[in-house]
Amino acid sequence: MNIKELPFTIDAIAKAYAEGVRPEAVIAEAFRRLEAVGDPGIFIHEARETALAEAAALGKPDGRPLWGVPYVAKDNIDVAGMPTTAACPDFEYRPADDAFVVSKLRAAGAICLGKTNLDQFATGLVGVRTPYPVPRNALDPEIVPGGSSAGSAVAVAQGMAAFSLGTDTAGSGRVPAALNSIVGLKPTLGALSSSGVVPACRTLDTISIFAMTVADAWTVFDAACSFDAKDAYSRDISVSDLSAVPPALRIGVPDTKSLIAFDNGMQETDFRGTVAKLASSGATIVELDFEPFYAVARMLYEGAWLAERVSAVGDRLTEKPETLHPTTRAILEPGLALSAVDAFEGQYRLKELERACLNLLAKVDALCVPTIPSFVSVKEIEADPIGPNSLLGTYTNFVNLLDMCGIAIPTGTRADGRPGSVTLLGEKGRDALCAAVALTLEAGSMGATVWERPTHTAIEPGAPRDSEIAIAVCG
Amino acid sequence: MNIKELPFTIDAIAKAYAEGVRPEAVIAEAFRRLEAVGDPGIFIHEARETALAEAAALGKPDGRPLWGVPYVAKDNIDVAGMPTTAACPDFEYRPADDAFVVSKLRAAGAICLGKTNLDQFATGLVGVRTPYPVPRNALDPEIVPGGSSAGSAVAVAQGMAAFSLGTDTAGSGRVPAALNSIVGLKPTLGALSSSGVVPACRTLDTISIFAMTVADAWTVFDAACSFDAKDAYSRDISVSDLSAVPPALRIGVPDTKSLIAFDNGMQETDFRGTVAKLASSGATIVELDFEPFYAVARMLYEGAWLAERVSAVGDRLTEKPETLHPTTRAILEPGLALSAVDAFEGQYRLKELERACLNLLAKVDALCVPTIPSFVSVKEIEADPIGPNSLLGTYTNFVNLLDMCGIAIPTGTRADGRPGSVTLLGEKGRDALCAAVALTLEAGSMGATVWERPTHTAIEPGAPRDSEIAIAVCG
Repeated sequence: MNIKELPFTIDAIAKAYAEGVRPEAVIAEAFRRLEAVGDPGIFIHEARETALAEAAALGKPDGRPLWGVPYVAKDNIDVAGMPTTAACPDFEYRPADDAFVVSKLRAAGAICLGKTNLDQFATGLVGVRTPYPVPRNALDPEIVPGGSSAGSAVAVAQGMAAFSLGTDTAGSGRVPAALNSIVGLKPTLGALSSSGVVPACRTLDTISIFAMTVADAWTVFDAACSFDAKDAYSRDISVSDLSAVPPALRIGVPDTKSLIAFDNGMQETDFRGTVAKLASSGATIVELDFEPFYAVARMLYEGAWLAERVSAVGDRLTEKPETLHPTTRAILEPGLALSAVDAFEGQYRLKELERACLNLLAKVDALCVPTIPSFVSVKEIEADPIGPNSLLGTYTNFVNLLDMCGIAIPTGTRADGRPGSVTLLGEKGRDALCAAVALTLEAGSMGATVWERPTHTAIEPGAPRDSEIAIAVCG
Repeated sequence: MNIKELPFTIDAIAKAYAEGVRPEAVIAEAFRRLEAVGDPGIFIHEARETALAEAAALGKPDGRPLWGVPYVAKDNIDVAGMPTTAACPDFEYRPADDAFVVSKLRAAGAICLGKTNLDQFATGLVGVRTPYPVPRNALDPEIVPGGSSAGSAVAVAQGMAAFSLGTDTAGSGRVPAALNSIVGLKPTLGALSSSGVVPACRTLDTISIFAMTVADAWTVFDAACSFDAKDAYSRDISVSDLSAVPPALRIGVPDTKSLIAFDNGMQETDFRGTVAKLASSGATIVELDFEPFYAVARMLYEGAWLAERVSAVGDRLTEKPETLHPTTRAILEPGLALSAVDAFEGQYRLKELERACLNLLAKVDALCVPTIPSFVSVKEIEADPIGPNSLLGTYTNFVNLLDMCGIAIPTGTRADGRPGSVTLLGEKGRDALCAAVALTLEAGSMGATVWERPTHTAIEPGAPRDSEIAIAVCG
């Protein structure tokens, strides 16, 4: 086997190990790919030597689900022995312990290659709000890499890590997936512990997972999901195997009036294609007026939750504002003026909108939306650091405020060569349902690689099945 | 029948109606009792003529559960055609519609006698923070009536209303029950709609029910509980009949170190007596360190939730502060200085404490606590308007912050002649379990009346039973 051609999917790596390839060789190949890509913006901290040592110490394959699988972690997630910066050099500390999720991945055999770049303090959807070199979009350097989990998304899309950890408060685990043609799994809040994660909005944060395929993302989720008694926001959620979609699947989509899509109609065309695919596989498409969801989305940066981000950076905003990225600082500052009355009144307003949204969600099993309404160029964001960023959050900002889960997946190439992407969204706990639907839709390029998307065994929607039967998924 | 001797319990009233007594006579008797008591502080608005007219219009008994049953409503709950003041004359408005719960009671045949006095804007546990005459405690005028649902509790304890509506944010539906020897049912948040209720802390408010017996309170709860699509905080909860207590009941109580009780040991003696009764009927008593509950309790008035009360009174606090009771104003003012960061950080802190409390609650089916740690005199509260009020909330303040339900019941007379009271508390949705346990414990005087407490059919704890069997309760 020529290791340079080894696709970094979990199954392909496991197969290589079964054939005698050593993890050290895979780790070395990961860093060779990093060098070949030549993007100094992906990592804030590279851990080549540590990773090689861990690989050497692994012994023989032992059946652990992520044995010898290389991954990267967003630099707001602690990995013992590596610095955590949240893309704010002055914030740097060296954690003694792994984040809870990192410890789970370590226990499953995964090897961390280093810590990746992000929009500072996870505030942004563009990936350029960092004092470090900006990561390049894996497909087109004129397009923003997406954020805030920029480096984590690019590392997977460039084929140097089999998966990566991001975080997702407003869409940071989904928008970069769309911009780099990969999968972004944003679990139900509390499914993945936040112990050892730098908060953005503590009531809305979750770790997210990037991978090339839905099956890989699910394997990682399964390994990482575990109740953490030390995280007050952790929930006791059991991860089921991915099963078939229900026989009478109902998928909600924005109606014509409320669909927001640009790029000369290309984003809409791509989205309609996916919806048609869903319909032809037997799903009932339910058109919904999305205004209540958009109203919730607007609350995230315009409303009281900004104060959570202010709380997360502590005194820095008032005592050492010069240590913040200018855009981050400009976004956070209005949060200082919000009163506790504002905070509670924002929550009342959310509760009312939530009722309207739940009434819509009661009509369907899941929603399908474009992950982003359009692509955003680096130039556009240089001209206006905030407007295009907000636009990118159209279909993501409302999700965590409504305690929903979601998974973004590539859907194939648009007429202009850019990757299409949709997100399946469901009420809390419907992670497996969303992923199962996503499994029937994922298509197109695996990031910037030339690798062929593996086929998987999917149960046809509409086929009779026992909803309790767990279906094995081959990635 | 001499109507002057008719106990105003729901069953006794129904029996009188079955024997031919007219509802007009019962309403007239209610107002005769009010005159006999001679307390100008109970009602803010008396509705004698309306009530008599409604009684006359009732026709013949038609099987509705509250047909012709007289009740009173706290004056922060709308009754169509009567003014609502929340004990702030300047706030007065005349609602066109009944509060949702009032409309349910009307549909069940109940007749509202008027609107009762309260600690202004439901802020207080003493009942004296009102610009109207202070209601007198039904048992001892030297003791505070308890609040904030003061008039509603006293009206029931004086035997002039078969039940009453209060509200409960910090204990306003339980503390006055203890001080007047009646039952106070505080349902799970969202079980009773808040539509048409003046908010105190919108995230923590609920309507509560006072009655002479657990069975009566439950009958009213059953009639009033219904999902309200217009109240964003309403929950779809189904009310089961009161069933027997589980065969292996585990009741948590404060351990010796964390029990807070005064009155020369009398409150502790009374409480120990109830716990012994529980133990002798087969329940397992589990001693718990209550510190996490107390830590939550302290957050209610010392922390961010004060801003909800500020929000509830709107511009009044800054524009027309002279229209507020001086104590209410003094309590609310610090809420103006709280920031949104304070609000969210309070919620983080609560979430952490909640985890500790849930770990304790997981060990038991319900908690049993003294409803109040001691009695408080009118003189004491005149000397210090705030300290003794806080003391009264020891066992009540944490309950709504933790989304728990509860029911306060009289337990008999202490050596000093004052009524004992305990509260059964459970996790959300355990209203029926708490009430079922309460049913086995209620004892002692029915308010200030000389009526005999009716016997009821209770299933012995520990007896084998099918948990799905609904047991009819005879009040």
